Amino acid sequence: MAARKHRRPRPSHRTEGDGGSYWIYGQHAVRAALANPNRARRRLVVAADHAETFAAAAPAAEISDRDGIERLLPPGAVHQGAALQVAPLPAADLRSACLPGDGERSCVVVLDQVTDPRNVGAILRSAAAFGARAMILTRRHAPPESGALAKAASGGLERVPVVRVANLVRALDDLAELGYWRYGLDAGADDDIADIDFDGNMVLLFGAEAAGLRRLTAQACDRLVRLPMASGVDSLNVSAAAAIGLYLARCARPDDA
Amino acid sequence: MAARKHRRPRPSHRTEGDGGSYWIYGQHAVRAALANPNRARRRLVVAADHAETFAAAAPAAEISDRDGIERLLPPGAVHQGAALQVAPLPAADLRSACLPGDGERSCVVVLDQVTDPRNVGAILRSAAAFGARAMILTRRHAPPESGALAKAASGGLERVPVVRVANLVRALDDLAELGYWRYGLDAGADDDIADIDFDGNMVLLFGAEAAGLRRLTAQACDRLVRLPMASGVDSLNVSAAAAIGLYLARCARPDDA
Repeated sequence: MAARKHRRPRPSHRTEGDGGSYWIYGQHAVRAALANPNRARRRLVVAADHAETFAAAAPAAEISDRDGIERLLPPGAVHQGAALQVAPLPAADLRSACLPGDGERSCVVVLDQVTDPRNVGAILRSAAAFGARAMILTRRHAPPESGALAKAASGGLERVPVVRVANLVRALDDLAELGYWRYGLDAGADDDIADIDFDGNMVLLFGAEAAGLRRLTAQACDRLVRLPMASGVDSLNVSAAAAIGLYLARCARPDDA
Repeated sequence: MAARKHRRPRPSHRTEGDGGSYWIYGQHAVRAALANPNRARRRLVVAADHAETFAAAAPAAEISDRDGIERLLPPGAVHQGAALQVAPLPAADLRSACLPGDGERSCVVVLDQVTDPRNVGAILRSAAAFGARAMILTRRHAPPESGALAKAASGGLERVPVVRVANLVRALDDLAELGYWRYGLDAGADDDIADIDFDGNMVLLFGAEAAGLRRLTAQACDRLVRLPMASGVDSLNVSAAAAIGLYLARCARPDDA
């Protein structure tokens, strides 16, 4: 066996050549990833004052000063003294992720080419808060799992399965077969979101902020609805719009009545 | 008079020594600032392919390549080919900004030590979208006007007056005198936000994500309410929570019925 070479310092936040692994950072995001049995974890690096919190963690925590943690992460990452190197989650399958449970209402959020990882992460966080069953993204024109996405999701990435599909229109067809009614949010729609019935299984579909829903995606919806907005304001942040939609979808769950 | 010295290149995104001026960037944010008569504007720099859009702007647009615009801005700023150097807006006065109009319902959003400029900007954007009359921030522990805040606000910074107060409890007292009912969002509250009456003039008060409302601030509210969340999820992003609250407050406006 060849003598083991002296290893150079580990690569920092670059993921190339490292099997797609990346660093999750921030207390909420790291703790949620440690609690997720489906999450392959490689290294855990924490600040000394957090050593006790992570004493039982697997992998065992390496202690570092904050500068040492920062060097592992992209510039400006707010790590709060905890970083965890992970592999992306296993791919989720649409039918198994979205199949409604017996006697339960299900809500699935679908994003049509929303590209900002912080927006996608923030929507995952709201999806987790309001009990959405899954999120569906396109394979292209959607951000990969990353530290920035996981930080914005604040644990939501570990709780809400993310399904990536090649063809969004086909995915919307599949969801109809599973019993979902598909609502697309569209600033130009005639119907107000407040006028729809929040019962049954619902898909909430949001487009990119500037472009909105693509034509074929909008045509694949059962109904297009808009959020009422003040005159002169043409759009909301997509994560704000999604928070409102997900809140309304959950708000009327029969089991909350 | 002393001979004028050769000037060094202008400072970039640093505001020190420049009367507090800063750069607003991004198409929406820049156009909204140009349309705001209360906004003191210094320099406008746009990419050549946007020259026509800004042909009538004051100050007259300087044309630059994208690298040149980037050098004026903080690293990573998404400028979309437009940057405008401005002075911060004149200070807004609580009573004149918040005085409800005759026969109108008014909503004011108050933030208790929310420090992330992107969150404050995103909340301003939702406040503009749902017709809030003003935003109130503390003088300390709140971000100053900045390009990042203005970008997230996407024009909302020019539309919704921002009042900065030394004492939030006194400001809440002043708002009660003006006829506002004060609701504080608090994850531990007994009452669900859906159970309140969205009529009359309302203050919606949000705290920092980790800390929530401070004790004295919470005590100064007429009522504390919570957003219903799935078990195991302890908080929403503050801008998501604010979007929901501002939507609900507007949603029931009598003039929308």
